[in-house]
Amino acid sequence: MVKLPVGVLGATGMVGQNYIALLNNHPWFEVRFVAASPRSAGKKYKDAAAGRWQLSKTYESWIGELIVAGANDVGAAKAANCAFVFSALEMEKDEIRALENSYAAAGIPVISNASAHRWTDDVPVLIAEVNPGHADIIPAQQKKRGWDKGFIVVKPNCSIQSYTTPIHALIKAGYEVKRIIVSTLQAVSGAGYPGVPSLDIIDNIVPYIGGEEEKSEKEPLKILGDIENGVFKDAAFPKISAHCNRVPVADGHTACVSLEFGEKKPSIEEVKKIWREFKSLPQELNLPMAPEQPIIVREEIDRPQPRKDRDAGKAMAVSVGRIRPCPVFDLRFVGLSHNTVRGAAGGGILNAELLKYKGYIGLAQ
Amino acid sequence: MVKLPVGVLGATGMVGQNYIALLNNHPWFEVRFVAASPRSAGKKYKDAAAGRWQLSKTYESWIGELIVAGANDVGAAKAANCAFVFSALEMEKDEIRALENSYAAAGIPVISNASAHRWTDDVPVLIAEVNPGHADIIPAQQKKRGWDKGFIVVKPNCSIQSYTTPIHALIKAGYEVKRIIVSTLQAVSGAGYPGVPSLDIIDNIVPYIGGEEEKSEKEPLKILGDIENGVFKDAAFPKISAHCNRVPVADGHTACVSLEFGEKKPSIEEVKKIWREFKSLPQELNLPMAPEQPIIVREEIDRPQPRKDRDAGKAMAVSVGRIRPCPVFDLRFVGLSHNTVRGAAGGGILNAELLKYKGYIGLAQ
Amino acid sequence: MVKLPVGVLGATGMVGQNYIALLNNHPWFEVRFVAASPRSAGKKYKDAAAGRWQLSKTYESWIGELIVAGANDVGAAKAANCAFVFSALEMEKDEIRALENSYAAAGIPVISNASAHRWTDDVPVLIAEVNPGHADIIPAQQKKRGWDKGFIVVKPNCSIQSYTTPIHALIKAGYEVKRIIVSTLQAVSGAGYPGVPSLDIIDNIVPYIGGEEEKSEKEPLKILGDIENGVFKDAAFPKISAHCNRVPVADGHTACVSLEFGEKKPSIEEVKKIWREFKSLPQELNLPMAPEQPIIVREEIDRPQPRKDRDAGKAMAVSVGRIRPCPVFDLRFVGLSHNTVRGAAGGGILNAELLKYKGYIGLAQ
Amino acid sequence: MVKLPVGVLGATGMVGQNYIALLNNHPWFEVRFVAASPRSAGKKYKDAAAGRWQLSKTYESWIGELIVAGANDVGAAKAANCAFVFSALEMEKDEIRALENSYAAAGIPVISNASAHRWTDDVPVLIAEVNPGHADIIPAQQKKRGWDKGFIVVKPNCSIQSYTTPIHALIKAGYEVKRIIVSTLQAVSGAGYPGVPSLDIIDNIVPYIGGEEEKSEKEPLKILGDIENGVFKDAAFPKISAHCNRVPVADGHTACVSLEFGEKKPSIEEVKKIWREFKSLPQELNLPMAPEQPIIVREEIDRPQPRKDRDAGKAMAVSVGRIRPCPVFDLRFVGLSHNTVRGAAGGGILNAELLKYKGYIGLAQ
Repeated sequence: MVKLPVGVLGATGMVGQNYIALLNNHPWFEVRFVAASPRSAGKKYKDAAAGRWQLSKTYESWIGELIVAGANDVGAAKAANCAFVFSALEMEKDEIRALENSYAAAGIPVISNASAHRWTDDVPVLIAEVNPGHADIIPAQQKKRGWDKGFIVVKPNCSIQSYTTPIHALIKAGYEVKRIIVSTLQAVSGAGYPGVPSLDIIDNIVPYIGGEEEKSEKEPLKILGDIENGVFKDAAFPKISAHCNRVPVADGHTACVSLEFGEKKPSIEEVKKIWREFKSLPQELNLPMAPEQPIIVREEIDRPQPRKDRDAGKAMAVSVGRIRPCPVFDLRFVGLSHNTVRGAAGGGILNAELLKYKGYIGLAQ
Repeated sequence: MVKLPVGVLGATGMVGQNYIALLNNHPWFEVRFVAASPRSAGKKYKDAAAGRWQLSKTYESWIGELIVAGANDVGAAKAANCAFVFSALEMEKDEIRALENSYAAAGIPVISNASAHRWTDDVPVLIAEVNPGHADIIPAQQKKRGWDKGFIVVKPNCSIQSYTTPIHALIKAGYEVKRIIVSTLQAVSGAGYPGVPSLDIIDNIVPYIGGEEEKSEKEPLKILGDIENGVFKDAAFPKISAHCNRVPVADGHTACVSLEFGEKKPSIEEVKKIWREFKSLPQELNLPMAPEQPIIVREEIDRPQPRKDRDAGKAMAVSVGRIRPCPVFDLRFVGLSHNTVRGAAGGGILNAELLKYKGYIGLAQ
Repeated sequence: MVKLPVGVLGATGMVGQNYIALLNNHPWFEVRFVAASPRSAGKKYKDAAAGRWQLSKTYESWIGELIVAGANDVGAAKAANCAFVFSALEMEKDEIRALENSYAAAGIPVISNASAHRWTDDVPVLIAEVNPGHADIIPAQQKKRGWDKGFIVVKPNCSIQSYTTPIHALIKAGYEVKRIIVSTLQAVSGAGYPGVPSLDIIDNIVPYIGGEEEKSEKEPLKILGDIENGVFKDAAFPKISAHCNRVPVADGHTACVSLEFGEKKPSIEEVKKIWREFKSLPQELNLPMAPEQPIIVREEIDRPQPRKDRDAGKAMAVSVGRIRPCPVFDLRFVGLSHNTVRGAAGGGILNAELLKYKGYIGLAQ
Repeated sequence: MVKLPVGVLGATGMVGQNYIALLNNHPWFEVRFVAASPRSAGKKYKDAAAGRWQLSKTYESWIGELIVAGANDVGAAKAANCAFVFSALEMEKDEIRALENSYAAAGIPVISNASAHRWTDDVPVLIAEVNPGHADIIPAQQKKRGWDKGFIVVKPNCSIQSYTTPIHALIKAGYEVKRIIVSTLQAVSGAGYPGVPSLDIIDNIVPYIGGEEEKSEKEPLKILGDIENGVFKDAAFPKISAHCNRVPVADGHTACVSLEFGEKKPSIEEVKKIWREFKSLPQELNLPMAPEQPIIVREEIDRPQPRKDRDAGKAMAVSVGRIRPCPVFDLRFVGLSHNTVRGAAGGGILNAELLKYKGYIGLAQ
């Protein structure tokens, strides 16, 4: 099979590095275009990334030889025949929004990691296992904006991954989820590089992450919502209260969740069964980046833990454990997912695989 | 003033070390008796503690010269004229209960850090600022058990300090607190020494602490409860759900709290005012170990933090911050207190000071 | 090819777990026998290891079903037709020595991770790339002890891996190495589990590891030495001074080395070339566990670093960097290797592969 | 006694914060002037420092009300009658040098923490216990530059404190120290705030600190050197080789030292005695910031350790331990000192106290 040539915008940042590393030997996609800030433009990728590379994984030598383009050089992306681009841009939101629009307008689909378009009412926020049907807003989006083949799809914030999929599985199994109070213990890689100063995190935790609680409370409602008249309409439930904390962990966000069901309440054993058996479209299609099991139920009394469980299911699974009754609501559990893989580049790649299957992306002509 | 001679049971363990360090130069009490396991008995304290001493603070040289007694040698404590003993015993609960009883029976009051007697129905669980009146069960306790001057008083688990005092202040100000969902981020010193293995806590958190959630949910109800017919009766509210996590922090427990009021709900500003102005008996009496302000309200967006705030108010204050509305309940906040000072030895010493003021302890005759 | 059935003694400990994980899908060896302390004996391996398993990697389900034997049950190992056993025993040295002897006497070769036999004068301490020829003392060892097919081979302490191979490469290239002063920054996994208490390592380092400096100074001399009259004779050089420190790192030992050559001194560029081009028997034979490059030279100014470089070359390579002149001796560099893979189970497996190639191990009859 | 009004340049940075905190209640000096970058100028100190304050210690409320001046506003410092200023400027070296010169030229002595003037040949690099006599170059400096009462004195880099004082004590006792190989394990606070990114230091160490090894090798020679013809002349010995590492420790630099004496070599017991008994001018004068014992000898096998020993002697003492023979050189030991107190603001204040005693600073007229 001919691989689709793809581009990575913001290729030298932390999420961009993860895209480069995870796309190594991808069966469908091949990085042919890397773009970054003007500071990096014109350099070989290996030189632009040197000194900033944070991963133990690396990339093939020919990728290092790619010349970095300026992120706003849409023409260069066209010239490279990009089937689509992954956006891992780190700029002001307004700039990102404008730049992503200009790629889409030029006929290049944008699969974005950035938060800029998450509240645009015709842009889907995709978790491939939760709301794959939301991708089908794309024709309406294209029509409305007068775009031909280009479109914009985004993925949600890394903090919500560890509870949104488990909650979706419960709803899908017929149980209303009314209210959630969640405390997250988030890894420092979520803040990028340099990100969190070490003086803030040695022998310390920081009980605040700017903007994170708002995202954690609102984004799940769009993902769990519906399309009405070509725009998204938020789900009415669950109501969410989030306490977001930064902890001294490199990778892997943990969430402690208390959850209130509607009238109908599953038993603890039933919850475990629902989660163990949950599969969705990416699993049915056996997409390359899809974890075999989207939700892994751990029975040990003290799991999941970031260092031991973040890499489960190619770092794409959500691990859940400590599933037990809640004396205030109905159910308590701990969820964990890898924030820079499942919660960022890996989630974006899985979205791209889904969109290719659905026919929204293909070879540029 | 002649200082009261006091003993420390379990003087070589972590909490015992904190007692020794904090009682250095105490204006009312002087350590004259140290007891520990048979392994340490007969050694000088400095030799028994060597290699186990975990604190940067130290003790005066003459304390190092005290000969360690066996913890079960009640006669030695009598011979040392102990006005009372602090119990920081680390043994099986049954053994601790029996041993503490034997001290009390011999006429030596026991102010305990251990959990053994927390659910004994005539033993008060004291937080000096919250339920100083509970000490007044002592005569009934003595009568029922046929004890003359001895009695037993305990302090609660370290995990509940960061939210129980703030909640008490709200109740005292006239607001019912119906339900609480709390996630704690607890320091490793709470597990003693050697305690938590470093492999469990480097680049990791552990979302489980044995027995901690049960204590965190039940103990506040006894503390907030009443005395009826010479025994304690739990308060009916608040219902508490606790998620207890171990994090890579040396000292200082943090709690993320969502709280539901009864019908009457204070504004955020009113909550801050209540907490800022809260004072109790230890402050009125100006007890030596009492913090000037039991609750310190921080206005910075990212505080309290363990490394920066645990030592506030002689490490005896509870720092609260991020006081904001809760989209699911009514109020959210972050509480923080020093687990080995406020939550252990310091809390015990403050209890002793209160009991001295109330006349329950004094010179042995 | 029929895989050789192998046993793991001490299979539930940290090094034992690494053996189990690394032997998953090994092309030559298959775990058929697991042994541990009497406490675990009789249980299924998965039950014995539950709650102690420290790795993110796991093992195939049929290994979990193996019944754990007592480590001293040599007959059970015979019954399982073990071609040889890996010893990862954690007991008193005398016991280990006696137990390993009893396996060898029963005809079962022992490839050991334990330090018990490192100073036995006819037992080779093997680093497969450095002294593969030392394995050829085996016939003399067997004859002297009246052993038929059994023998004992050990691997050195984890702390010396990051500098012994680079030094050997320099000596092999014709440069005498006279003196070395080395400071190590060692990971906590080197102390096993529970190992280092977290209170000793949060916001702290410990500048002492029991017995480690002695091993770090002496073991390289045996490895770099010769066989004379059927026993090992230490090399006269280099003289080594080691400062061993424990640091808050999970895996990966780092060494800061200052080195004095003899009369003939290579240039910095020559040193890099020697290290880059160094290959040895395991590479020539393409042994399954052998890293393609035993020594990886990093040119970045701040590498190697444990989290980023410990997994290089299947976690079997030594990464070196900061290669620069020494104002006091001749050369300075930083070396890094993975202590539980290269420095423990992985090194043991590579030794076994070498011994199989050399014909010292094969199917039991 | 009337306190001398003093200024702090760079008062909002990390070292500046330490000056503000340590000068709280100082018996001789009182902060009356704070200066920082143009960004902070015009704000109240409490507002300029808010959100950047890193310490658990704080300052008196009236200091928070001081209006921050621009660091280059020498006239404002004059107007505030500053007897002298502490410089904790964080700018380009050339700018710092020029700015410090302009204060001195205006008659305001500068006691600097910055490295800008460390290699100016008539500027002393003072460790008050090691080379207090170097202060007496001040009249020559003033004359040469045409300065009236102003002058410039600096303190050395934080990395050298833990071995320079012990080495000086040995030399003073009559033992030549010929060569030193030292590996440092340095705290992150040495890099300021935000400083070291947390992703570089969680589960990791960084074996490189820009410029640090050069400073560690050269600065001790100026400090141990002499004044000749009005300029400093470096000592010829010891030759120093430094390996500088960043480790996950908040405060406290540790150094592992191997040391070669000249012909005359003290015994280990003699070394301990020399260090235990070492006192210098600050101790004789009982200066407020001087530690009672400049060098504290620890006999425990695993000390000193940063978290337990950095605060010894008001965080102004050097703790040494693991004093033992070196198999390559003569002596090995571990030294530890608090990098932001002894190694920065505390050292600067002690220098100021010394200079006041010597009459070089006093009330501005």
